[in-house]
Amino acid sequence: MQAVDTLITNGIVLTMDQNGRIIDNGSVAIKDSKIVWLGRAHANDHVIADAVIDAQGGIIMPGLINTHTHGPMTLFRGLADDLPLDIWLNKHIFPAEATFINKENVAIGTQLACAEMLLSGTTCFCDGYFLEDHVAQAVSKAGMRAVLGQGVIDFPAPGVPEPTQNVAEAMAFVERWHTHSPLIQPSIFCHSAYTCSAETLRAAKAAARDLGVIFQIHAAETKQEAGMIQSGQIQRPVQYLHRLGILDANTLLVHAVWVDDDDIAIIRENGAAVSHNPESNMKLASGIAPVPKYLSADIPVGLGTDGCASNNDLDLFAEMDMAAKLHKVVLLDPGTTDAYGILKMATIEGARAIGLEQQIGSLELGKQADLIVIDTHKPHLVPLYNPVSQVVYAVRGSDVRDVIVAGKMLVRDRVLNTLDWEDILGRVSALQAEIAAFSNQPAAISR
Amino acid sequence: MQAVDTLITNGIVLTMDQNGRIIDNGSVAIKDSKIVWLGRAHANDHVIADAVIDAQGGIIMPGLINTHTHGPMTLFRGLADDLPLDIWLNKHIFPAEATFINKENVAIGTQLACAEMLLSGTTCFCDGYFLEDHVAQAVSKAGMRAVLGQGVIDFPAPGVPEPTQNVAEAMAFVERWHTHSPLIQPSIFCHSAYTCSAETLRAAKAAARDLGVIFQIHAAETKQEAGMIQSGQIQRPVQYLHRLGILDANTLLVHAVWVDDDDIAIIRENGAAVSHNPESNMKLASGIAPVPKYLSADIPVGLGTDGCASNNDLDLFAEMDMAAKLHKVVLLDPGTTDAYGILKMATIEGARAIGLEQQIGSLELGKQADLIVIDTHKPHLVPLYNPVSQVVYAVRGSDVRDVIVAGKMLVRDRVLNTLDWEDILGRVSALQAEIAAFSNQPAAISR
Repeated sequence: MQAVDTLITNGIVLTMDQNGRIIDNGSVAIKDSKIVWLGRAHANDHVIADAVIDAQGGIIMPGLINTHTHGPMTLFRGLADDLPLDIWLNKHIFPAEATFINKENVAIGTQLACAEMLLSGTTCFCDGYFLEDHVAQAVSKAGMRAVLGQGVIDFPAPGVPEPTQNVAEAMAFVERWHTHSPLIQPSIFCHSAYTCSAETLRAAKAAARDLGVIFQIHAAETKQEAGMIQSGQIQRPVQYLHRLGILDANTLLVHAVWVDDDDIAIIRENGAAVSHNPESNMKLASGIAPVPKYLSADIPVGLGTDGCASNNDLDLFAEMDMAAKLHKVVLLDPGTTDAYGILKMATIEGARAIGLEQQIGSLELGKQADLIVIDTHKPHLVPLYNPVSQVVYAVRGSDVRDVIVAGKMLVRDRVLNTLDWEDILGRVSALQAEIAAFSNQPAAISR
Repeated sequence: MQAVDTLITNGIVLTMDQNGRIIDNGSVAIKDSKIVWLGRAHANDHVIADAVIDAQGGIIMPGLINTHTHGPMTLFRGLADDLPLDIWLNKHIFPAEATFINKENVAIGTQLACAEMLLSGTTCFCDGYFLEDHVAQAVSKAGMRAVLGQGVIDFPAPGVPEPTQNVAEAMAFVERWHTHSPLIQPSIFCHSAYTCSAETLRAAKAAARDLGVIFQIHAAETKQEAGMIQSGQIQRPVQYLHRLGILDANTLLVHAVWVDDDDIAIIRENGAAVSHNPESNMKLASGIAPVPKYLSADIPVGLGTDGCASNNDLDLFAEMDMAAKLHKVVLLDPGTTDAYGILKMATIEGARAIGLEQQIGSLELGKQADLIVIDTHKPHLVPLYNPVSQVVYAVRGSDVRDVIVAGKMLVRDRVLNTLDWEDILGRVSALQAEIAAFSNQPAAISR
């Protein structure tokens, strides 16, 4: 008999372990931050729990992992849509960022993002933005797990008015957060090969390597990107990054849409990972990443929502559904990107893409207790023949009932325990009025 | 001062009328089954209401219209996925239908479908199946609006063991339901040009024409379909149907994926309509319908979910999001299928596609009061700059708070008023165990 903190009983446990084990009528026991027991029914024969949570026949599974977003940009959800990328960025997003991105708003935008992510079953995310200290503080308050990348770009940016200091600022950020919390892994996020010089890219990657942290970069997102890189003879972004020595097992290539078979071989040989963001790539009409080829090459591929301004939500359940269906229709092959493969991308393969597969991404003994409970007693979730199919093709973020990160209950019965939703709503509503006025948007809301 | 039954106040009213009017802080008044007043605030100066409903700053909009589904197939949600169409149909769906489709199960499957549709904001749907009388009875119980097509196919089918009687049975169905309820429009649904002979197609369309009802048919769904039509020289499904005299303003072509510019011209010239089902077409890897071309040709295009077995849900909000993004990325044009155009497909253009645009699809004086209220006080729905963008790109079916059809409140605060959810759940769970055993599916659920 083992004494544990929390026992979750009476659920279908999707472990996402190497054997793809699914436990009918299963239970999971948690002590401190870890999973200390899991198995079929009768957990009471094995453990004595301080608290017992009945999953009521629902699904118990690893919390989802969002491998790419920009939390504070949640403030710009739906500010501008259906526009060419350059107009969207230059006429709408960049001006709004220049005016409204400051410490306070980064914090509140991130709190909003965390509230949305937690309530849709995401327990860990990989972020890249500026003023990332304030992202980190909000994430700490929320109690989520995250890889947080301080942005590096060769232009004046929020918090980094002097671009020559961009790599130094990123290094200082990493050092400040390196041992701050077991839940936060600092990182360096270079915006792209067309907004950072070769020198900046090399220096930022060298810093990330020295500090032992993940290096994130938007790469090969649009067809036009190759033409925007000042790289002499090398026009293909992935090959360019490779020549600069950027690619290794701690590099996360975000988007990686416009790649050829040589690029894929380079990514594989260097052990780099990919963050696939289908909804953003579709909405911005960037293109379709060759995900089935990445999977065949055993390149780690995680799913990402990208920022809210190009999605327009942070719901990984919707992202899974979209990803599964997109590749089938593009290849005219219904067997490609099957439900289990997609679910791996949102869990264990996402963990692998950001270097956390030893800690999270599956429910196994000794791993961190980052998990969610899904309420399946709803009209759109019955009948239930195959829980994996249901999770990918029918479950929505709003079906997530409980959320646990590192053993702590952050959402119980859809109520946020660590964040004050009414406070967030009030602050975001006030900010919305200012941003709408600035953008000449009709103030649609009157509360 | 006008006496009304219900007044909905304090919402952003998306009218979807010809001018695209959006009323901030608006109200809508309902008497009997109709909208009798709508406008800005201060409705109390104009009407006296028996019941006042506060939308609390949320969105008031027309109920969504699902132009293609097979309600009873909700029983097969997730039964088989990620398979080639022929294996999916012949090894899984057809055997399950042959064994489990009977009057009682059609009724319970349709109740389940209605529960899901109502709770995700769909107020009207266009159905095609067999034993359609039992679909109609379930829909009547639910209080939804529907176009219901009795299936015609040249094989023995549930309720029609003798295929020579298929058109006669469909005619009898139409006659039984023609004046039964103002909410139900009977229809004739020919399965396809490859499962019905030319004689059957002609006879069924002649019957639909005589009876003045909508004729539905799956057409040009897959690339292989042309080869399956026994049509002599004519290989293109749309041209084949045209030569048979099938196409007119009361014909709904479902899917219409594999068409060329000549086919599109034929559809336009004959005034036929299209039901676009992107999630089903993606999941089954059927192909991508040329929706932007249909819209340019002013062909009425509605959205459909198709049956649950190929989606795997009936949520038109997810369908809108998918449709908007799919065509952008395929054409590499972020401006195509913009949010407002997509929302029209799910409302007024959907109504036009099934011949109901005079009654439903927009909120206007004298039209039927089929409308929904969306709760926007949620983390994934703030900030709110543009309600149309929010509805298409961020709202989920679970955000629908209230649903009214023909003036009757069918859902209030997410509780079903006309259907007994616990009864449906119990019956579907029992049936699920039988279907799982038949299909050799692991019985994943243990409740």
